[in-house]
Amino acid sequence: MAGADARLRAAVVGTGLIGGSVLLRLHAAGLDVTGWDPDGATRRRAREIGVPTVERLVDAVADRDVVFLCGPLPTLPATLVEVAAATAEDCLLTDVGSTKAELAAFAAAQGLTHRFVPGHPMAGTDRAGLTAALPDLFHDAAWVLCPAPGPGLTAFRRLAALVMDVFAARVVPMAADRHDAVVALASHVPHLLAGALAGAAERSPLRDAVLALAAGSFSDGTRVAGTPPERTANMLLGNRAEVLAALDSVTAVLDELATALRAGDRAALTARHAEGRDARLALAGRPTVEVRRTFPPAGGDEELRFLHELGAAGGYLDGCRSTGDGVEYSARRLPAEPGDRPAAPLG
Amino acid sequence: MAGADARLRAAVVGTGLIGGSVLLRLHAAGLDVTGWDPDGATRRRAREIGVPTVERLVDAVADRDVVFLCGPLPTLPATLVEVAAATAEDCLLTDVGSTKAELAAFAAAQGLTHRFVPGHPMAGTDRAGLTAALPDLFHDAAWVLCPAPGPGLTAFRRLAALVMDVFAARVVPMAADRHDAVVALASHVPHLLAGALAGAAERSPLRDAVLALAAGSFSDGTRVAGTPPERTANMLLGNRAEVLAALDSVTAVLDELATALRAGDRAALTARHAEGRDARLALAGRPTVEVRRTFPPAGGDEELRFLHELGAAGGYLDGCRSTGDGVEYSARRLPAEPGDRPAAPLG
Repeated sequence: MAGADARLRAAVVGTGLIGGSVLLRLHAAGLDVTGWDPDGATRRRAREIGVPTVERLVDAVADRDVVFLCGPLPTLPATLVEVAAATAEDCLLTDVGSTKAELAAFAAAQGLTHRFVPGHPMAGTDRAGLTAALPDLFHDAAWVLCPAPGPGLTAFRRLAALVMDVFAARVVPMAADRHDAVVALASHVPHLLAGALAGAAERSPLRDAVLALAAGSFSDGTRVAGTPPERTANMLLGNRAEVLAALDSVTAVLDELATALRAGDRAALTARHAEGRDARLALAGRPTVEVRRTFPPAGGDEELRFLHELGAAGGYLDGCRSTGDGVEYSARRLPAEPGDRPAAPLG
Repeated sequence: MAGADARLRAAVVGTGLIGGSVLLRLHAAGLDVTGWDPDGATRRRAREIGVPTVERLVDAVADRDVVFLCGPLPTLPATLVEVAAATAEDCLLTDVGSTKAELAAFAAAQGLTHRFVPGHPMAGTDRAGLTAALPDLFHDAAWVLCPAPGPGLTAFRRLAALVMDVFAARVVPMAADRHDAVVALASHVPHLLAGALAGAAERSPLRDAVLALAAGSFSDGTRVAGTPPERTANMLLGNRAEVLAALDSVTAVLDELATALRAGDRAALTARHAEGRDARLALAGRPTVEVRRTFPPAGGDEELRFLHELGAAGGYLDGCRSTGDGVEYSARRLPAEPGDRPAAPLG
């Protein structure tokens, strides 16, 4: 990371799979970092692997420049209040929870939008705990950050630069409610489908033979059914309305496929699968173009609009440089539509 | 492979992903093998990589000891008739199609059960064609073979030994209709779920952002949506009734999950996901015990029952040795239930 940030003091509150991976990476990058976890065995484990942890949350976060809140989703509001009270006004706060709208609204009600930036790194495994943590878990992964207007934009810039520098992640700027609608389809409904497929196999009188013949399609399609059930339930309940809406959109296509199959309609069955294949091919990689934009030191609506539009269009930031003259973003996005403004360099 | 079989003359009819992988492995194992594909470019490609192919199907299969039928599912009945007419009465025939009951019934009606053994290797990728073929595709994979009574058992023994020796696959003996019910859940419904998830993403107004944030759960859950749509449609239409029944069992669990989520019922949501996790943990590996069984030279109902029960219980063969005294099978299965007969050595 850049030399200027190497003196940054960071803390990680909650050091399970995600928090532990954040902690390991911050430590490996040379930051002054302390971790804390409510579980004493986890704290001991962190010390055994050489990562500084302390016994009390307040000692972990005091005098820090940035604090990552990485505990279970239902604990985040109370932890945010506690950490905010124990840190200075210029200490950046962020979280890694899998839903964003509720917590963003809570933070706004607490008057914390000038320093709390809701976040969600799109990475994980079906394992749990610090022992499963990996310092490179976020390398090249999408990491959503939700910018707020006004002073919130300054906090966003600082955190975006940190996430790109330290974690080598792709920062996807996105409004909190938009994030929740997107991840409902990109992550939460896939967990429901995996749970339903694995659950049906578990209940089937053919269970043992099904598991013996399970090929790639079943194995891939049920992988996240191995996730700790409590974590999955938290995630789904934290985004209930969006998940149910996204599930409706998936079962609508599933109904079309079943109807075509029942009718022996080969053309319809093939066409529906071809549609899905298009998404799959796009997922494998689409060409992007570089975009550069600059904004004045005091962030305004235009900057917020640029960031929101970038994330909504499938783009991401790969650079964020603040100078006395303002901020310069560099970004990748899908090829511009007619009417987009051309990339403009800083200064 | 065993020296005695190294002189075996084999043919592969249809050299796409699966047939091409069969061909490459037979060739690498030193068998005298010829391939044929209706596509001239595919035949040229096979010759370019040094695998013998001929211009006419009849020349590929004449004088062969065993022929693998690997064309698309709808072409198999006609190809079976054609190949049976062009080969000797002691030439073994098998196929690699993803459904078995219809073709098994067709072969019986043609009087071919004494030498046609329906087969289905449970391996594949989402790519297609000879260029995607891999000689080790079936290594350690389940390979279903469907034994028929009487002389069909002799054919089964010969083919099972060949599949284990040459491909290092786990031979799963299974009745054809049982196979179709099992793969409906183990393979076909996962393709429908993947198609529905990918299709819903493709249609979503949030498409580009969904693909940008797609994490492991979406990527894994849609992988087989990249399969050529015609191949998927053939597979589903070839097993329509069983697929629709298995889909009902999956949507029943999905409905339970959605109901629990809608009601905010954390306990039910967690319990349903825990059920699916049990299947997933079982998939990751279950301890098996060794079983050895011998049967007299003329196969009878007891041998057929042993084979059918082994596959239905999630077991597989890992050895099949024919001698003048009969046949000795060695197998792996889940730990025996009370009442199972103990393993008994040959002789």
